[in-house]
Amino acid sequence: MAAFLKEGKSMLLAYDQGLEHGPSADFNERNVDPAMIMETAAKGRFNGVVFQKGVAERFYDGRVPLIVKLNGKSSLVKGEPISRQVCSVEQAVSLGAKGVGYTIYLGSSSESEMFAEFGRIQEEAHARGLPAIAWIYPRGASVQSDTSKEVVAYAARTGLELGADAVKIKYTGDPASFSWAVRAAAGVKVFMSGGPKAPTDDDFIAQVRGVIQAGATGLAVGRNVWQNSDPIGMADKLRKVIFT
Amino acid sequence: MAAFLKEGKSMLLAYDQGLEHGPSADFNERNVDPAMIMETAAKGRFNGVVFQKGVAERFYDGRVPLIVKLNGKSSLVKGEPISRQVCSVEQAVSLGAKGVGYTIYLGSSSESEMFAEFGRIQEEAHARGLPAIAWIYPRGASVQSDTSKEVVAYAARTGLELGADAVKIKYTGDPASFSWAVRAAAGVKVFMSGGPKAPTDDDFIAQVRGVIQAGATGLAVGRNVWQNSDPIGMADKLRKVIFT
Amino acid sequence: MAAFLKEGKSMLLAYDQGLEHGPSADFNERNVDPAMIMETAAKGRFNGVVFQKGVAERFYDGRVPLIVKLNGKSSLVKGEPISRQVCSVEQAVSLGAKGVGYTIYLGSSSESEMFAEFGRIQEEAHARGLPAIAWIYPRGASVQSDTSKEVVAYAARTGLELGADAVKIKYTGDPASFSWAVRAAAGVKVFMSGGPKAPTDDDFIAQVRGVIQAGATGLAVGRNVWQNSDPIGMADKLRKVIFT
Amino acid sequence: MAAFLKEGKSMLLAYDQGLEHGPSADFNERNVDPAMIMETAAKGRFNGVVFQKGVAERFYDGRVPLIVKLNGKSSLVKGEPISRQVCSVEQAVSLGAKGVGYTIYLGSSSESEMFAEFGRIQEEAHARGLPAIAWIYPRGASVQSDTSKEVVAYAARTGLELGADAVKIKYTGDPASFSWAVRAAAGVKVFMSGGPKAPTDDDFIAQVRGVIQAGATGLAVGRNVWQNSDPIGMADKLRKVIFT
Amino acid sequence: MAAFLKEGKSMLLAYDQGLEHGPSADFNERNVDPAMIMETAAKGRFNGVVFQKGVAERFYDGRVPLIVKLNGKSSLVKGEPISRQVCSVEQAVSLGAKGVGYTIYLGSSSESEMFAEFGRIQEEAHARGLPAIAWIYPRGASVQSDTSKEVVAYAARTGLELGADAVKIKYTGDPASFSWAVRAAAGVKVFMSGGPKAPTDDDFIAQVRGVIQAGATGLAVGRNVWQNSDPIGMADKLRKVIFT
Repeated sequence: MAAFLKEGKSMLLAYDQGLEHGPSADFNERNVDPAMIMETAAKGRFNGVVFQKGVAERFYDGRVPLIVKLNGKSSLVKGEPISRQVCSVEQAVSLGAKGVGYTIYLGSSSESEMFAEFGRIQEEAHARGLPAIAWIYPRGASVQSDTSKEVVAYAARTGLELGADAVKIKYTGDPASFSWAVRAAAGVKVFMSGGPKAPTDDDFIAQVRGVIQAGATGLAVGRNVWQNSDPIGMADKLRKVIFT
Repeated sequence: MAAFLKEGKSMLLAYDQGLEHGPSADFNERNVDPAMIMETAAKGRFNGVVFQKGVAERFYDGRVPLIVKLNGKSSLVKGEPISRQVCSVEQAVSLGAKGVGYTIYLGSSSESEMFAEFGRIQEEAHARGLPAIAWIYPRGASVQSDTSKEVVAYAARTGLELGADAVKIKYTGDPASFSWAVRAAAGVKVFMSGGPKAPTDDDFIAQVRGVIQAGATGLAVGRNVWQNSDPIGMADKLRKVIFT
Repeated sequence: MAAFLKEGKSMLLAYDQGLEHGPSADFNERNVDPAMIMETAAKGRFNGVVFQKGVAERFYDGRVPLIVKLNGKSSLVKGEPISRQVCSVEQAVSLGAKGVGYTIYLGSSSESEMFAEFGRIQEEAHARGLPAIAWIYPRGASVQSDTSKEVVAYAARTGLELGADAVKIKYTGDPASFSWAVRAAAGVKVFMSGGPKAPTDDDFIAQVRGVIQAGATGLAVGRNVWQNSDPIGMADKLRKVIFT
Repeated sequence: MAAFLKEGKSMLLAYDQGLEHGPSADFNERNVDPAMIMETAAKGRFNGVVFQKGVAERFYDGRVPLIVKLNGKSSLVKGEPISRQVCSVEQAVSLGAKGVGYTIYLGSSSESEMFAEFGRIQEEAHARGLPAIAWIYPRGASVQSDTSKEVVAYAARTGLELGADAVKIKYTGDPASFSWAVRAAAGVKVFMSGGPKAPTDDDFIAQVRGVIQAGATGLAVGRNVWQNSDPIGMADKLRKVIFT
Repeated sequence: MAAFLKEGKSMLLAYDQGLEHGPSADFNERNVDPAMIMETAAKGRFNGVVFQKGVAERFYDGRVPLIVKLNGKSSLVKGEPISRQVCSVEQAVSLGAKGVGYTIYLGSSSESEMFAEFGRIQEEAHARGLPAIAWIYPRGASVQSDTSKEVVAYAARTGLELGADAVKIKYTGDPASFSWAVRAAAGVKVFMSGGPKAPTDDDFIAQVRGVIQAGATGLAVGRNVWQNSDPIGMADKLRKVIFT
């Protein structure tokens, strides 16, 4: 994960919402344009930017280390979630990626397929010298709450067990409970998933402060930056909290 | 996509309806014959023609750049749609294809299988120097309307995220809402899907004008040309609207 | 298909009913023996004989060109039909096959699996210089009638679109409606599927006459020949109708 | 099948019940030990012995030709039966096998998967010079009786069509009806499946006599030998009936 | 299995509960740390330690022979259990493994997939000189009791039949019934699965004594050691019982 770390901490800019949620759910006329995101990643001095392969092919310009998300799904499909590989590790490398990402819906009835696919990806990524980053989202009929201390720690631990180099997980809401997830990850880098835009910048900053206080590596943020009226300003604020 | 563009615009002739809808739904004694379509593509000065491999093997004569559709299904199957690869990229190349097409039923419970298959095809097509064109049709029990601004833009965006070089999507009905899909595609060429025969030629021409006004690249048209009593005349009219 | 044609017409002897229907449904003490069929194929001057690989391994003697059926299922299984590949193209070639056959249950909920499998087989067969012949039977809960003009033409057209060299389809019942299927096949050789034993020889001969009149290539017949008390006599009658 | 035949007849000792039924259903303190079975096979002068790979690895000593069963399932699973390959042909060869066995549940909703898997195994076995022996058991919700003349003949015929060198099928109960299965097999060696322990030795001997009278090759017997208080004595009795 | 045996007996330390049960179900601030387990394995003089690949990558230090679990699932998924391969045999070897483990849910409706996957793993592991150890847990709607004499013996026997070098199974509760499982395993090394923490150390020791008395090789223990207030003390007690 060294490519994405600065003094052991990290701030990643995520931009796979166009596929995961659809453009109308999250984008406006400005941030629908991936060029604006690439610019924000560079000017906001992010430690990495996350794209699906199609966006990377057209808009990635090398100013910030690249993570290519290797799987994805639309939000239109209902029922137990499954997300399958749409980009090979080889292709990610050819796009300049320094890391690959993969989402696992922990607890889904298709969990086993994602476990197996991530298992193969992790080995191939490591063989090529890239870290494998797991987005681990507990979801499906059998998951009651995906932000409880127990479930979030389970997500973090799954990343460790399956050999992820970093996990992206939801915040539990307070540093004490989140620190249990960090402990469970046992050295795997923990990134908070930014989630929907918080009511105010301060609300979000407070969350990030809690995450860092809990011992996490940083966050992978999307909407709270590029939906902000001042993305670079927001990036500056976040950077201060993370790299204190 | 350069092989299919003229001044950045394009008019493709689609003819996979024999498989997708069946001959009795769309064909008459004249247009049931693929030779008539090949002739129309050439005389109507189309920028590309779309065939399944079987039709290409027997009727493609090289006068117009070829796109081979790599997957397909019949309309007899009910339930959540799935369309699987029936032609390899290698085979398409050997038939003279300058591009390959693939249909994704966005929102179908089998979406993940089509995502994964398109992911592999896109990489193989690019490795052989061919563009990968995605027909993206939101469909399945969870899709309310497949012509709403939100859903059409989602289809367009999916093409970008998955690395398509062009997308074929339905028209929303007005240029303002369709331009959102074009924005969401962020540089991926947008083609309107021609759809069923419009009541009058003027109705269809008006749609195409709106599509071009919205910034799209053009259209992939089938029934509105080869079901027309004067296909070449209709092609002339469309060409004027697209290449103005 | 040249190996199976004489003056552009053809009469094939089909004998996969032992697997598809079971021996007790269709066989008697005489025709249960594949040697009797091989003899009938030769003496009846058929243009081809259709066996599953096991029968070909033990009974095929080279006197008549061989088509090996590559997939099959028993009639015991209920629900949406699926028939999977049980013999490789390579194996068929090693058995002396000059063509391969594959059944597609059009409209079945497993249609996509058979489409994909036939797609691979078609390419491999062509690479080895063999024609790929598609048995296309519309079947499944969503298929109302499998002998209607529309559905039979859909079957024929599917063969064209998927790259079959010939299709074996059911008869619609009259030459006028069947000629629409022949048109839809657009050059793909059309064979009538013989079906169950007709009440009288004349009934069956009349069907075949209609099929030929409709422009088809011929028929693949089984029960109406080898269940006949005089198979060679019946073959002679059919030959006269087909090669007039 | 020459390795397993003596004057065209054969007596095989089957011992896969530990997996198929579980040790408590069929074994006692004596026959739970595979060494006792290996000893019985040798001393009882069987023409072959049937083991799963794990038993073969530990207990097979070469005194009797070996058939390795390549698939298996437990009796704990309910619903439509499926049995998948657990041992490669290559591995069977390395264990000293002179033949491979595979169970097909004819009529099961998973029939197509077993057909396809057996199809691949048959070709690989033949390529390595081994016969492929099919255990064909009609089973599943759509199978009324698995010992009727019609269903047993269907099982035998399926073996022929799929290219099996021998089939192991249930007895119909009388020689007349079983001879129809032998006819349907058309030269494929037919083995009676021994089934559960018969009430008396004479009952079982009578069955075997009927099987041989019907023209079958012999039987694959398990429980009726190794559950017998005098296994070698029973083997002697069976041998006399089979090799008369 | 020689690498994990001492005088034919063995005591393994299992630590895959972080994935199988989640950290909050089984771990506290101390044992959530894999380093504590590695230390316990070494200081407690275990004959082997069981890790998932991610834990092995970060914490395995070579002091104790390593078994890498090749599959896993979370406890969040409900319904018929399935656990798929997440680590290749090759990767396990590169991590220093001297053995590989795989869980089979015997009786699950997905049993056949795990049988087939274990079948391939067993052959690959043996080709590389590693034993394949099967965790065999009868589970699913059709399993009444997973500790009955019959079901536990079935689990043990399945290991033998599928070629496992050792099986990890639940204890039946008394030596007499457990010895039937040991007999059914017919030479395959039998390990008791430690299970949840017993009420008192003496309770657990009594179980282990019964297991050894029944002829088993030893146990794979987790929670009863590392949840103990004195893990090394508990290990000493167990060692005395096992290696008497």
